[in-house]
Amino acid sequence: MSKGRLEAFSDGVIAILITIMVLELRVPAGAAWDALRPLVPVFLTYVLSFVFLGIYWNNHHHMFHAVQRINGKVLWANLHLLFWLSLVPFVTRWLGETYTAALPTAVYGGVFLLSGVAWLILTRTIIAAEGPESRLAKAVGKDRKGLASALLYAAAIPFAFVNHWISEGIYALVALMWLVPDPRIERELS
Amino acid sequence: MSKGRLEAFSDGVIAILITIMVLELRVPAGAAWDALRPLVPVFLTYVLSFVFLGIYWNNHHHMFHAVQRINGKVLWANLHLLFWLSLVPFVTRWLGETYTAALPTAVYGGVFLLSGVAWLILTRTIIAAEGPESRLAKAVGKDRKGLASALLYAAAIPFAFVNHWISEGIYALVALMWLVPDPRIERELS
Amino acid sequence: MSKGRLEAFSDGVIAILITIMVLELRVPAGAAWDALRPLVPVFLTYVLSFVFLGIYWNNHHHMFHAVQRINGKVLWANLHLLFWLSLVPFVTRWLGETYTAALPTAVYGGVFLLSGVAWLILTRTIIAAEGPESRLAKAVGKDRKGLASALLYAAAIPFAFVNHWISEGIYALVALMWLVPDPRIERELS
Amino acid sequence: MSKGRLEAFSDGVIAILITIMVLELRVPAGAAWDALRPLVPVFLTYVLSFVFLGIYWNNHHHMFHAVQRINGKVLWANLHLLFWLSLVPFVTRWLGETYTAALPTAVYGGVFLLSGVAWLILTRTIIAAEGPESRLAKAVGKDRKGLASALLYAAAIPFAFVNHWISEGIYALVALMWLVPDPRIERELS
Repeated sequence: MSKGRLEAFSDGVIAILITIMVLELRVPAGAAWDALRPLVPVFLTYVLSFVFLGIYWNNHHHMFHAVQRINGKVLWANLHLLFWLSLVPFVTRWLGETYTAALPTAVYGGVFLLSGVAWLILTRTIIAAEGPESRLAKAVGKDRKGLASALLYAAAIPFAFVNHWISEGIYALVALMWLVPDPRIERELS
Repeated sequence: MSKGRLEAFSDGVIAILITIMVLELRVPAGAAWDALRPLVPVFLTYVLSFVFLGIYWNNHHHMFHAVQRINGKVLWANLHLLFWLSLVPFVTRWLGETYTAALPTAVYGGVFLLSGVAWLILTRTIIAAEGPESRLAKAVGKDRKGLASALLYAAAIPFAFVNHWISEGIYALVALMWLVPDPRIERELS
Repeated sequence: MSKGRLEAFSDGVIAILITIMVLELRVPAGAAWDALRPLVPVFLTYVLSFVFLGIYWNNHHHMFHAVQRINGKVLWANLHLLFWLSLVPFVTRWLGETYTAALPTAVYGGVFLLSGVAWLILTRTIIAAEGPESRLAKAVGKDRKGLASALLYAAAIPFAFVNHWISEGIYALVALMWLVPDPRIERELS
Repeated sequence: MSKGRLEAFSDGVIAILITIMVLELRVPAGAAWDALRPLVPVFLTYVLSFVFLGIYWNNHHHMFHAVQRINGKVLWANLHLLFWLSLVPFVTRWLGETYTAALPTAVYGGVFLLSGVAWLILTRTIIAAEGPESRLAKAVGKDRKGLASALLYAAAIPFAFVNHWISEGIYALVALMWLVPDPRIERELS
């Protein structure tokens, strides 16, 4: 089974998700500077979610570049990842509109955590299809960065009820951690 | 005529359909747990429709993998399928907002039934183009699963006016039935 | 210059256009049969526009299948066509909501007419790039069907101010005329 | 690393952006000519933004046609460009609704300026990956047109607070300047 359509479909879904978020940026009520102020938290949340989806697209690109064989289970593991990513515009909008509120901050982190878990499942499913001797299995190794991200998101969720800045700081930190494409895979493949 | 653009166009349409449904998840009115409660039926309907569209994408992927020749009739049979699938976000939204109501439950099933019929027509059109000796014709055989799904959907529609749980149970059952990629085609092609 | 990205981009735009129209199908105000009645004209207009865009996608597919060379002018002639097609969701919504009104019926036809003109320009631009001896030039010939469609749309526009049923009948007639893929091109290419 | 998915993803994002803008064209409040009048500025802004995004897609197509190697930095420079382009529907809507207002005119130009800067960064990043002897490096040369566009946008922003027609004239001028595909690259590649 070829990976071409899986890549094209994932590209399509992520391209749409990263784009429709901008539909949530409501047009300011007027043409004055004041009208822009309530948009600031919405805009910052938009930037964070854009970077988050960009990271997933980049990592997806890198990982499938190394993949040689897929099967039906990989298709579903990929759709499972896309499901959690598809909730990003929803939580982005909610967090942007209720900025500083605890619950939306926690739910935002929850979607990130479940996306991260779906990513780990996808990685495991592909390695199971390709075998432990595959390039990908060697490149990913123990996948410490993936596990660390999931743990950080899991920690950020309860912190949302203490101080939302801590959670948002953690989200930004994980984003920075991933901004550079995975050197393990790059090293292995170059 | 090559199947590449037909696949790309179908991927695009299904990717958009699976994604724009999330635009319907209205942002909760506040930041409290209570604000999330009215979203529960909407969310569950979203999950069911996401799985439903995911199944169609997966099966489309599997079927066209086996296809070698297409013609103008196949293009239109495919567009006919996409037409019914394009109504999924609409009925998802309606069912999510009027949960437990009979008519939306029935209409939801009607769109699933007509998508299933369109799928059967597409299969037949492709087999007619490829000939009865084609890999696809052999792989699909009598297509019992496709017929069973259509019959189950047809049964679910009147049940919506008796008890909407029965209909929704049937929709979930058919989804589970298809979650595993078609072993007949997989066996034939592997 | 390769035609791959032009096809992919056009597929993307048409896939999005054909899909976002369904966002305009407002959820009925209730769960009763009565709530569905105001949707009937909107739904019929949706079907007509879906078929209209489907025809353009099919013809685009057929035409570019025969194309071997493109240049910068073809890129812009194609974008010009996509521009007029991009207005289809807008006029569909307007016509659906103001059914039986003269002006929206005329504007709907106007967008169809300008899309048809853009199609003729695109055909001419490609033939200019490929040369009069190209397969496409021979296949299209005098392009009587394209010209007839444009003339019919042009006639339908003033009729909208007389009786909107005449205009809508013409729109449906042109759709039927194109539903079968262009036999001239098919004959030439098969 | 192959450029195929980067092109497909960019095509997807730009196709969505160019299409969802039409969702902002609100349906007129009635079916009379008067109802169309408030749409005129919105429509003109839509045309300008459509051309603007069309130019970026065309230039993206031309540039990546000449590209042979990409790396992780190019992926991010490309996402950075897509980020600024993703704000185009938002500023289009705002400018269309507040026509003649200074601040939206300036912000519209600001998004164009930052897109232009992101384009220059993307060009530099690709040349850094390909080396100064690459076809692209030679074709782009000093990139006077790119720099001139950025300077014109930068000039248009303060003019918005003097007379918005000057700024809009500059936006239209830059659009015209780019409508013809870059002859330097075309000459080099043909």
